[in-house]
Amino acid sequence: MKHKPRVVIIGGGFGGLTAARKLVKLPVQVTLIDRKNHHTFQPLLYQVATAGLSPGEIAAPIRWILRGHDNVEVLLGEVSMIDVEHKLVKLPDHDIAYDYLIVAAGAGHSYFGHDEWEPYAPGLKTIEDAIEIRRRVFLAFELAEREAAAGDKLSPLHFIVIGGGPTGVELAGTLAEIARKVLADEFRTIDPQRTRILLLEGGPRVLPAYPEDLSASAEEQLKKLGVEVHTSTLVTKVEAGAVDIGETRLPAAVVLWAAGVAASPLGKKLGAPTDRAGRVLVNPDLSIPGHPEVFVIGDLAALKDETGKWLPGVAPTAIQQGKATARNIARDLEKQPRRNFRYLDKGSLATIGRAAGIAQFGKVHISGFIAWLSWLFIHIFFLIGFRNRVIVFIQWAWSYFSYERGARLITGDTELPGWHKPEEPAKEPSARSA
Amino acid sequence: MKHKPRVVIIGGGFGGLTAARKLVKLPVQVTLIDRKNHHTFQPLLYQVATAGLSPGEIAAPIRWILRGHDNVEVLLGEVSMIDVEHKLVKLPDHDIAYDYLIVAAGAGHSYFGHDEWEPYAPGLKTIEDAIEIRRRVFLAFELAEREAAAGDKLSPLHFIVIGGGPTGVELAGTLAEIARKVLADEFRTIDPQRTRILLLEGGPRVLPAYPEDLSASAEEQLKKLGVEVHTSTLVTKVEAGAVDIGETRLPAAVVLWAAGVAASPLGKKLGAPTDRAGRVLVNPDLSIPGHPEVFVIGDLAALKDETGKWLPGVAPTAIQQGKATARNIARDLEKQPRRNFRYLDKGSLATIGRAAGIAQFGKVHISGFIAWLSWLFIHIFFLIGFRNRVIVFIQWAWSYFSYERGARLITGDTELPGWHKPEEPAKEPSARSA
Repeated sequence: MKHKPRVVIIGGGFGGLTAARKLVKLPVQVTLIDRKNHHTFQPLLYQVATAGLSPGEIAAPIRWILRGHDNVEVLLGEVSMIDVEHKLVKLPDHDIAYDYLIVAAGAGHSYFGHDEWEPYAPGLKTIEDAIEIRRRVFLAFELAEREAAAGDKLSPLHFIVIGGGPTGVELAGTLAEIARKVLADEFRTIDPQRTRILLLEGGPRVLPAYPEDLSASAEEQLKKLGVEVHTSTLVTKVEAGAVDIGETRLPAAVVLWAAGVAASPLGKKLGAPTDRAGRVLVNPDLSIPGHPEVFVIGDLAALKDETGKWLPGVAPTAIQQGKATARNIARDLEKQPRRNFRYLDKGSLATIGRAAGIAQFGKVHISGFIAWLSWLFIHIFFLIGFRNRVIVFIQWAWSYFSYERGARLITGDTELPGWHKPEEPAKEPSARSA
Repeated sequence: MKHKPRVVIIGGGFGGLTAARKLVKLPVQVTLIDRKNHHTFQPLLYQVATAGLSPGEIAAPIRWILRGHDNVEVLLGEVSMIDVEHKLVKLPDHDIAYDYLIVAAGAGHSYFGHDEWEPYAPGLKTIEDAIEIRRRVFLAFELAEREAAAGDKLSPLHFIVIGGGPTGVELAGTLAEIARKVLADEFRTIDPQRTRILLLEGGPRVLPAYPEDLSASAEEQLKKLGVEVHTSTLVTKVEAGAVDIGETRLPAAVVLWAAGVAASPLGKKLGAPTDRAGRVLVNPDLSIPGHPEVFVIGDLAALKDETGKWLPGVAPTAIQQGKATARNIARDLEKQPRRNFRYLDKGSLATIGRAAGIAQFGKVHISGFIAWLSWLFIHIFFLIGFRNRVIVFIQWAWSYFSYERGARLITGDTELPGWHKPEEPAKEPSARSA
């Protein structure tokens, strides 16, 4: 039997997984490498961080998703190096030779050169991140209750979300919902409803990628939920228990980072040109200059559409690019010319909290309950794995009607970095005045 | 309004939580203190460790379970000291005065004086334990697949479960099911079905607390599932990647500890007599000598029944003792004499794997599918929280028919202690001969 070309895919996110699902139907050998054993449905990660869903409900083992195909191999491991000259991908214990390489390694957090902020303001990219945020959020209420029981008159808790993009908006809205509704009757000494949730955005409006009217509506909906939205507000320092905005110091029990994204460092190892965020500037067919056998897709790729606008770093882009790349490899095998990638904008949605959201389908702009509902069904529909869909739907229906959040587990350590002692920041007038 | 007596409960397990649920209906103030924010349904913990259920499905926040009662306060914290003379319980940031104290702090692992074994053989008591075991089990298959892909001819994986009690039997049976069925078709290079699962029991039979015929049946069922059962086998050493039985060294990718239980150290802080396992020898009414206002219940209490047999350290004992203690406190308030605790044995069940188990209801002994079915429904019925019950039932039905285990997430670190390099233990003849 003749040699089947080997396609190595780095990354089991939306882009890499979609490419793999298409490629297994071709006469190729597929090797998918990821640092995790599971695909994470990132659009719902904020639900895990806020205890609406359990990790297992938004993540599925990659080898389970690709089961039943003999020509795909899934490896757990971190790629240390890519040698495009010799067509080798280096894993800890061995090298893998490829005929085609698809780099879909995604993006991580960027603290804009302030990595020392990370321990005090975790971001939300992985299941582990979500569990850590969940731990901090619910632990803050527990520690406040215990201190109050000890007789310390505490000022209300402060949660600060940095970054007004989709993730920041989802987190802030859901935190408000938790404080106002979910925990309202469960504490004896503190009053969760007095919790202050601050959303800090450096730019002039939240959800900057959306049309202005939708940004305005999102801000409206956030305020209705009780979130204090501060736009054109630049964070100058983050430390244990506090965030500085120039001269002003904001005390904070929990700080969450939703501001910056940095492309995977693997992008730099391809020898191709990258942009300031470290994204690889790809050819129109998503390959890299001088190496038609190497493709970069998803959040790690930088490409403009016909109108000269950069493609958004969202799941649909990655999914469409994964499909397009598999098709171009198929065309290579059939000696057909490749086609350039064309992004089809099916519209975009952002959720804000319980029954709130915004949506844009071309010229159509929607706000509120309908936007949220479309968001909900589209996401449950695309959630990978039948089992998960059913469970997630039940969970959601249940928590929608009951205001419960079932996955409120605090696991691991029961300390918070910079948890304020009574005489510290959170007791200053500015805070008490809330 | 007259002073309501304060009842402080230490521990939110079956005993403490049951006592709290009864006490909130009395004219008392209840304070429940636990190191975790959640009650864990321990009988199903092995399902989390083996990815059948997600942590959130077998654990519920204690303050959520007790919500809607104004006379109960839930505090997250670790009790450092108990002063029975001054009736004080000491928390990190303050002391709590009590009129009644119920100590239901349960038990942890005992490595029989070999605590250095713990990092290599985790036990299963908490959600964190279960997540760590899940990580090791599924990571072992991933690392083996990657090494095999690197061209190393690997001997089959070895999993060693130490201890043939209910937990050890559940774990071994379920691990066999995972290797033989769940993962069977998902790996390309290794063959999970060749995995060896060894169950090591020091005594002459597994499930020693059960009648001999049921032990024999359990061993039969385990063997049918592919577990290698070794009774009268004493472990002399556990280290990274290996377990010693006298002169014989067994290589192991993962070692699990289900052998020893040690009562909570709080038992020793009451000044009451304790047994060798550190359990408090309580009066027939579950109070401690000289302190009628202090009760000890659940796994931390040692009490004999009428026949002189020690009460088993199982959930029903703790639940019945929680109720009995609440009733005795009620009798004190009504100036009625207390009643001694009488344990009602409603029978006991152990599950072994998919559709296998044993059950004893008085003289009636059941084995196999029916036993497993009764086990399943009894446990789902008692699972705390309606939401969880529905979800767990669906999960279970689904994984029963699909052979899937949805919660197969490897979170955290991707290293295994003592993971064998090709030239190490697992490659020696004894192992390869499998």
